[in-house]
Amino acid sequence: MRYLVGTHHGEQSVFSVNGDAALNLTQAIPQVGSDLAALVATPTLAAEAARATGNTVPVADITPSLPIASPGTIICLGLNYVEHIREGGYDIPDYPALFMRGRASLMAAGAPMVRPACSETLDYEAELMVIIGQGGRHIPEDRALEHVFGYTVFNDGSVREYQRKTHQWTPGKNFDNTGAVGPCVVTPDALPEGASGLKIESRVGEEILQSSNTENMIWGVARSIAIISEYCTLAPGDHIALGTPPGVGHAKKPDPRWLRPGETVEVEIEGIGLCANPVVDEADFSKVAAE
Amino acid sequence: MRYLVGTHHGEQSVFSVNGDAALNLTQAIPQVGSDLAALVATPTLAAEAARATGNTVPVADITPSLPIASPGTIICLGLNYVEHIREGGYDIPDYPALFMRGRASLMAAGAPMVRPACSETLDYEAELMVIIGQGGRHIPEDRALEHVFGYTVFNDGSVREYQRKTHQWTPGKNFDNTGAVGPCVVTPDALPEGASGLKIESRVGEEILQSSNTENMIWGVARSIAIISEYCTLAPGDHIALGTPPGVGHAKKPDPRWLRPGETVEVEIEGIGLCANPVVDEADFSKVAAE
Repeated sequence: MRYLVGTHHGEQSVFSVNGDAALNLTQAIPQVGSDLAALVATPTLAAEAARATGNTVPVADITPSLPIASPGTIICLGLNYVEHIREGGYDIPDYPALFMRGRASLMAAGAPMVRPACSETLDYEAELMVIIGQGGRHIPEDRALEHVFGYTVFNDGSVREYQRKTHQWTPGKNFDNTGAVGPCVVTPDALPEGASGLKIESRVGEEILQSSNTENMIWGVARSIAIISEYCTLAPGDHIALGTPPGVGHAKKPDPRWLRPGETVEVEIEGIGLCANPVVDEADFSKVAAE
Repeated sequence: MRYLVGTHHGEQSVFSVNGDAALNLTQAIPQVGSDLAALVATPTLAAEAARATGNTVPVADITPSLPIASPGTIICLGLNYVEHIREGGYDIPDYPALFMRGRASLMAAGAPMVRPACSETLDYEAELMVIIGQGGRHIPEDRALEHVFGYTVFNDGSVREYQRKTHQWTPGKNFDNTGAVGPCVVTPDALPEGASGLKIESRVGEEILQSSNTENMIWGVARSIAIISEYCTLAPGDHIALGTPPGVGHAKKPDPRWLRPGETVEVEIEGIGLCANPVVDEADFSKVAAE
């Protein structure tokens, strides 16, 4: 099942997507609401959604929104592909580097990725994103995949200069409108176990920036859920970003490859989808927002 | 003005506190709601609350709750007192070490602080906590204090072994039920500018663990708000924890001084209040929760 949250004729709804056709689940089942918050928390509602029927609209007519408007917790693995760890100058750890993003840092697929006024060091990162279904604490690794509602794409813009102001990465990972989630959320039954073995790429136009496979992650989805839920309770709708493969801009030789206004940065994961965001300077974004 | 959110006769309300007497603002003004979420976002409501009158109940009969049940973003400064930086073996930085907590890590004043099953390295940290009123981005330092709704106490339990699993501190700062907020939230008019110059202590019984003054913070409240809002939009109700003074348990000589079940750890800030939490083993806490 592929879910898409987005706006059609001015109204935000949840759709199920089949090829180019989207079925409005919010119209078919009012309890679904306008984003995935109710579906992630209510397995019976998801089962009902899977049986819904009705007229469809073209996917192309829908403007994506965030899958969940206000996710409770957004947890990110920092170093999860061996070659990316080496290019950043870090040692291979025996525990994932974990940090968090706040809601203000996220935006939808298609929305502007904002390069801040204070730094030109806006970098790209292609990432697999997990959306938690059933919550829990101390989730054992061998049951962890039962807690996944679905998988989506994360276009994780990172302001390197601020990420490395101190040893804590939070500021560089939390600039407003730098991390895009979506557009589609794909349920586990439609993908390989743990979303492993999927090609993952980031691109600007014809330029391939990163190209790897999710099987290269050190900590897979199940192991990551077990590690995180050892210290905190995961709730339905929580987001976990699984880290990025090698090829990031700050490690490119001979010069870093920063994202520039006017470019569109794309992240694509096989079987899940394509998240594309135009890069916009903060000054121009403020103008757009004020119009 | 001192606000207290808590349960009285089984019902959670917002109270204004004057000495030992608490006035139920939720009863007096229904729009106040059951926590500070409406008040932080609505200056006119706060002005109305300041004028409210009615019968009072004893503060001692109220069981504190979190001031805001679901704060959007909880941002913490890690190293903000020179002597604490030295005892941790870090260099004095020119930018604060910033990380985030998730909602599941917080609990109310008086509630158990849970020592996890996986580690005995539960440490104490006394901290000043700011609750944001009016939100904003790019807030200049000289206007930043206008964005403070109030100040409270943060009893910041930290699991050092997990804080230092990698260079990112998130896991050790995010164990469920380790960070207590409250009990009272004091508005800026009742305190020195920026809540500077206040004695801050942590104690277990007669044992003074940390004793310092908020004037020793490297980044004061106004500067911290300016730094954080350079990268992200602050929203009403967001929490900012201002870091801890020297004397933490992991740096005690000759042996670390970890918190033990059966102890009650207290943090007190002059003019704001006392946040006391009994330390409970995770196994026993689960039993309490299940009863």
